Amino acid sequence: MTTTNEAHLIRSNRKFAKCFDDGDLSHLPAKKYAIVTCMDCRIDAYSAFGITPGDAHVIRNAGGSARDALRSLVISQQLLQTTEVFIIKHTHCGMQGLTNDGVNATVVKNLGPEAVAELDAVNCKRFDWLPFAELKQGVRDDVAFLRSSRAIAGEVHVSGWVFDVETGKVSRVEK
Amino acid sequence: MTTTNEAHLIRSNRKFAKCFDDGDLSHLPAKKYAIVTCMDCRIDAYSAFGITPGDAHVIRNAGGSARDALRSLVISQQLLQTTEVFIIKHTHCGMQGLTNDGVNATVVKNLGPEAVAELDAVNCKRFDWLPFAELKQGVRDDVAFLRSSRAIAGEVHVSGWVFDVETGKVSRVEK
Repeated sequence: MTTTNEAHLIRSNRKFAKCFDDGDLSHLPAKKYAIVTCMDCRIDAYSAFGITPGDAHVIRNAGGSARDALRSLVISQQLLQTTEVFIIKHTHCGMQGLTNDGVNATVVKNLGPEAVAELDAVNCKRFDWLPFAELKQGVRDDVAFLRSSRAIAGEVHVSGWVFDVETGKVSRVEK
Repeated sequence: MTTTNEAHLIRSNRKFAKCFDDGDLSHLPAKKYAIVTCMDCRIDAYSAFGITPGDAHVIRNAGGSARDALRSLVISQQLLQTTEVFIIKHTHCGMQGLTNDGVNATVVKNLGPEAVAELDAVNCKRFDWLPFAELKQGVRDDVAFLRSSRAIAGEVHVSGWVFDVETGKVSRVEK
């Protein structure tokens, strides 16, 4: 069985591949930077942030969390030669204002206590859903986290930004 | 100081925001699906997979790892009503063929043993860089991981795909 969304992917990709001419791009990002942003459905990262295929790594997760992105960022820098990171969170983010207890309660209600137990076992401690209380402070905290991490080289340039989902505008929070 | 890439982001976003008319989109993905794919610089996920703003969550990390994406996927399903996941890895992925020992050796050489110690401390065990040996098997393993996870509801539809970076074509690996 093919779902409606699968059929859409297949159909759209067939059109895309017909006009595809980026087959010779390097696996090394030409502009040597990585963006960490949210998985949010309203963010078309390439268009909103001016990314061209071949230029940059794009890392996306719930909340645009730098902690969650650490594995990918170290790979990006140590194996793929990037030297700059943009943390771009956004207004009206679903991760803002959540608490770990609140998310755990929802998961237990819908999936049972075994689900939370499985997640806790991943890290040998209470699973961290990585919510944040205030938007700009959340950006600053993530920038500070990367700047102080031993796994991120001191010469990597880290900056922090906010994307406004109502206006499409990006503004800088932290240089 | 503004870096060249920062100046490019600011300039590109100014143009983008002028024509922006998606300010009223819901935070809930209209088509109720999430894509997990690689951070690779050659993948313009919206164009390649036919995604329109507002339709889907896009989760990206090194290798397009479902394990790395688990937090985001549970948030996507439990709080934001998605019911379908696409795992899309790609040909010539930098994560294919790596080993944890190999990546650790590079990190120790470039950043010192403190860097690896910090990463190990995140999970109270040896940090897993989540490499994979063979492409299609890597996709199958990630699909199986999600299907067997207690944190992913049984009714969530999970499928597995490969994106060919040389042709732009997506093909199905696992229904």
